[in-house]
Amino acid sequence: MTKPLFAPVIENAAAQGRVVLVCEHASNAFPKPWGDLGLTPDQRAAHIAWDPGALGLSRGLMQRLDAVLVHAPVSRLIYDCNRAPDMPGAMPAKSEVHDIPGNAAISPDERLARTRALYLPFHDGLHALLMQRIALGLRPVVVTIHSFTPVYFGRPRAVEFGVIHDADPALAVAIRDAGARLTRLNVALNAPYSAADDVTHTLRVQATPYGLPNAMLEIRNDLIADAAAEQAMADQLAPVINVGVAEIQKQAKAS
Amino acid sequence: MTKPLFAPVIENAAAQGRVVLVCEHASNAFPKPWGDLGLTPDQRAAHIAWDPGALGLSRGLMQRLDAVLVHAPVSRLIYDCNRAPDMPGAMPAKSEVHDIPGNAAISPDERLARTRALYLPFHDGLHALLMQRIALGLRPVVVTIHSFTPVYFGRPRAVEFGVIHDADPALAVAIRDAGARLTRLNVALNAPYSAADDVTHTLRVQATPYGLPNAMLEIRNDLIADAAAEQAMADQLAPVINVGVAEIQKQAKAS
Repeated sequence: MTKPLFAPVIENAAAQGRVVLVCEHASNAFPKPWGDLGLTPDQRAAHIAWDPGALGLSRGLMQRLDAVLVHAPVSRLIYDCNRAPDMPGAMPAKSEVHDIPGNAAISPDERLARTRALYLPFHDGLHALLMQRIALGLRPVVVTIHSFTPVYFGRPRAVEFGVIHDADPALAVAIRDAGARLTRLNVALNAPYSAADDVTHTLRVQATPYGLPNAMLEIRNDLIADAAAEQAMADQLAPVINVGVAEIQKQAKAS
Repeated sequence: MTKPLFAPVIENAAAQGRVVLVCEHASNAFPKPWGDLGLTPDQRAAHIAWDPGALGLSRGLMQRLDAVLVHAPVSRLIYDCNRAPDMPGAMPAKSEVHDIPGNAAISPDERLARTRALYLPFHDGLHALLMQRIALGLRPVVVTIHSFTPVYFGRPRAVEFGVIHDADPALAVAIRDAGARLTRLNVALNAPYSAADDVTHTLRVQATPYGLPNAMLEIRNDLIADAAAEQAMADQLAPVINVGVAEIQKQAKAS
């Protein structure tokens, strides 16, 4: 069976700013040929299917930073573009307490088909965007935007704004520091999880090998639960990102 | 001006072996629209334009290892696929003692055009091959094949077989050890240069982020100066690679 290709959605491609925002978990769409994977409407609306609020926040940041925005058009439960094809989380059989019936027994051919249809177009599209900006002398700053559930496996999470780094911590540390100074959010570095949990795949593939400054931002999803909250959070975080980027540019000049 | 796309050449794509051989400097072709960049025929045949002998050796290894082989179809002087678009060596204005007239003043648009025509198709093609093998559960071992000139800036080089690693040294060390044990070649780790010289771009982009075993092999080109010598070197190095791969598989099982 030939499956369609799902290219990433790219918004504001001609942006003048250096930041490229990436939202791998923007969508809870369950298109054919996969369909709903046997999930209920409630499950398809829950954090297991996508990062609620992340796309709205990303668009708010895109406007305020004059950034490019790249986002995935399909639920992470069909293919999680922040995971390599052999990671268990790429097409998970279980997410938190939920079984995913349509992922219970994925054949190698089906794994290959989803990799071709979803993972490769997403990463090739993002890679082309980044490399073309590099070729033009506009070295990008890669910032991925995620949201996390306030209660996980029954435990509440106190952190509100997590900043996660891959091999190079500079931008994440600068954004964490700016977040602590400029907002009243409960900010933490490498929380609610870290690169050791294999959550920095996009940074590792797209930014680290090129020495591009990068960070992964995680916002607790109860703080971006509707459009007004998303915009208010974008108002808070846009200056935080700007200050973080300015700080590492200052460090780069000083070294 | 629209420029053609130069996809990598992929040979033995259905190989049963786990090794994927990559030869970024296989070709000294100078196709339109760039042409010869103002170089003489002697310069276009020299080590600055390609890695003489590397493709023949790679094909010999491909047959002996039942490996896939991926190689670039255009001279590294038009675009060096082992360099990111903003590295000086990607489209060098000078190589060793030779000025490259056609690269003396490359505009941002021309840099972008070569990146699109040469770098992106090469790396997207290699990436697709690797990810599809990963999706099928056939985790590849990435080995890049290079040759180096016996005399550089007037100085002779004693090393005959260099094994270079990126972040993960395991396979390179195992191949170096096997090379020292199984051949009479002058073998050295991270010689005649190393990752610190930014020569491991392909490994860094295609293997390191996925945790794939990887190494870069460098053979002094006077030892692979004709077809018979290439085949004799493949006879020597195929068992060295096999022993190196077996050694890291043993280490992985023991850990």
